[in-house]
Amino acid sequence: MVGGVTPPPTHNVSDTRPFDSARQALQPLDVAALAAARDRHLQLTKPPGSLGALEDIGCRLAGIAGECPPPLPEPAVVAVFAGDHGVHAQGVSPWPQEVTAQMVANFRAGGAAINAIARGSDVGVVVVDVGVATDVPDVPGVSFDLSTAVSKRSQPVLLNGRVRPGTSDLSVGAAMTVDDAMRALDVGAEVAQGLVANGARCLLTGDMGIANTTPSAALIAAITGCSAAEATGRGTGIDDETLAHKTGLVEKAVRRLASDVEPLERLAELGGLEHAALAGFIVGGAAAGVPVIVDGVIALAALLAAESLAPGVSQRVVAGHRSVEPGASRALAHLGLEPVIDLGLRLGEGSGACLAQPLVAAAARVLRDMATFDSAGVSAK
Amino acid sequence: MVGGVTPPPTHNVSDTRPFDSARQALQPLDVAALAAARDRHLQLTKPPGSLGALEDIGCRLAGIAGECPPPLPEPAVVAVFAGDHGVHAQGVSPWPQEVTAQMVANFRAGGAAINAIARGSDVGVVVVDVGVATDVPDVPGVSFDLSTAVSKRSQPVLLNGRVRPGTSDLSVGAAMTVDDAMRALDVGAEVAQGLVANGARCLLTGDMGIANTTPSAALIAAITGCSAAEATGRGTGIDDETLAHKTGLVEKAVRRLASDVEPLERLAELGGLEHAALAGFIVGGAAAGVPVIVDGVIALAALLAAESLAPGVSQRVVAGHRSVEPGASRALAHLGLEPVIDLGLRLGEGSGACLAQPLVAAAARVLRDMATFDSAGVSAK
Repeated sequence: MVGGVTPPPTHNVSDTRPFDSARQALQPLDVAALAAARDRHLQLTKPPGSLGALEDIGCRLAGIAGECPPPLPEPAVVAVFAGDHGVHAQGVSPWPQEVTAQMVANFRAGGAAINAIARGSDVGVVVVDVGVATDVPDVPGVSFDLSTAVSKRSQPVLLNGRVRPGTSDLSVGAAMTVDDAMRALDVGAEVAQGLVANGARCLLTGDMGIANTTPSAALIAAITGCSAAEATGRGTGIDDETLAHKTGLVEKAVRRLASDVEPLERLAELGGLEHAALAGFIVGGAAAGVPVIVDGVIALAALLAAESLAPGVSQRVVAGHRSVEPGASRALAHLGLEPVIDLGLRLGEGSGACLAQPLVAAAARVLRDMATFDSAGVSAK
Repeated sequence: MVGGVTPPPTHNVSDTRPFDSARQALQPLDVAALAAARDRHLQLTKPPGSLGALEDIGCRLAGIAGECPPPLPEPAVVAVFAGDHGVHAQGVSPWPQEVTAQMVANFRAGGAAINAIARGSDVGVVVVDVGVATDVPDVPGVSFDLSTAVSKRSQPVLLNGRVRPGTSDLSVGAAMTVDDAMRALDVGAEVAQGLVANGARCLLTGDMGIANTTPSAALIAAITGCSAAEATGRGTGIDDETLAHKTGLVEKAVRRLASDVEPLERLAELGGLEHAALAGFIVGGAAAGVPVIVDGVIALAALLAAESLAPGVSQRVVAGHRSVEPGASRALAHLGLEPVIDLGLRLGEGSGACLAQPLVAAAARVLRDMATFDSAGVSAK
């Protein structure tokens, strides 16, 4: 069992599971703060509505924080949850499975895309092995130390939250047990709570896992009701034949589920350990009252799972970007979310969320820092 | 005549006009550096092409700088060129003309949207009165002092580059003389050169001018060949009747021009002083070898004018965003530019360019800071 940031003296699993605590603490958006932000936008020295979607993001931030103007979503930290997938054995990805562990080492050393992008926006990087199948070098103990994740955020932090070494093959049976899924949900919720306790005021989702667009497509098809073909894409790059094979595996897995399957069981049947951890992370961040910027198709599949486990949580997130994976657009439409950026990204790691973070911060700054027509002596039309 | 940052002892107008100097210094993109960036992207620890448009931006930055990896586009400064428009008398905007001068004061005091957004990205703000019609409070002398514009960029700088107090009504005759347009082109080029001389490594275009979507639409229709109806939009918000009236004025103005009109005369006939200054600023920044991030419809109309005066200059810019004004999309398509963000903005001031700046910087960081497959020991597929 993963230890807490400040573990209680008598640790009772049934009473204190981090995901359950977070789910119970989740609040609806503060509609008064949201309305105050809409009203404030009309007083600021700009034509009404002229900042478009940036105004909507600012209003959402106010609703999340319960105050207008909303606090700056800074400091921000991206948590990259890494896991492997039994379905890799079916040949759904051209990359060897060891790349997951190799990329975890790369994140820790600061050489990946997410590191380069995060440095530019002063976003911290936490890497969590929640289910890597092969050895990760220099892996720490299982008690999470997040004490430097925010205060020294130029230095990536690696956490050992491994529930098991990769999932089973979702195309032939359950990817994991319900208990495994619960444990991964707890890992995610605990990381979110720990980051906020250490001063983070905005959480970003990141992910790494060779073959993880396959479970993402399965979750998206199962939850939104779209077809496997509509949810399944080329991931990091596969040919037509492999795409048809991958789509068939997704279809078979989704068909296996009963129509009245429980949300937690569905997550265990189809998801990856990083999907479950991400769902826990999203609910944990939302429960702690900070905005959660979600990344692309992996994160959106996890958000669908999170919404099914904790209804309303998706109101407390900002969709960072529109991935080119077709399932991402299905998930965004199902959740009624408009992404901040659309740059044709298909990398994962949290890269799209991290690129969106400065724009989300700008949405808060506009509400916090702009003069009103009255205060600036500018004539209204 | 506007004085130089370091005025030469014997100022000979015909030899040293800043815009002409810039135009002559303009170089094509460095194709070797661009190709090196494309190649480098394939070595970095990510699937090929997975950073989508961010990879294209990074390659363009390399081509602009003539080196791979490209330098960081920092520090950055947005120059907000302010002017008024004789066509305002035709009732094309619901805002009183004095708002242009009031907003200049607001920019200087730090209370406008561009100030709030720029602060978050550490972008400096320079405001240039190139043709405001009414009094601007505390206006400085005409010799440009840009010494603090980059080094103390949290403090907005106001420059007096006023060529004349607003244009004439473009719907009944030339908006300005060719000499006025040349003087405004010089103001823009001089500001760009001064900012780069003081250390700026990225320039952003900004604009302010009540009624300035009307000359923008006229320039876009005249240069791209689209109809007035395709180029004309609602600006900061007008009803159907006013839109029809505005479109009719644009159509009438464009029809007045001979089919073989010279680019400079076309700019003088239809443009605003801020359009001419922006065109000079874009060419000046491009000639100085730094990337220029252009804002919305006003800047894109100016970029079309700049491209007609200095062919190839648009290869050295990054389109910051897609304004909701229909003319913006016409201009982007004509120039073959894909904007970085698309947030439904219609504010101007440089807000879209400034929101795009951190993403442009991230494109450079990826090429500069990421590990390669070899260096990180990550298996290629």
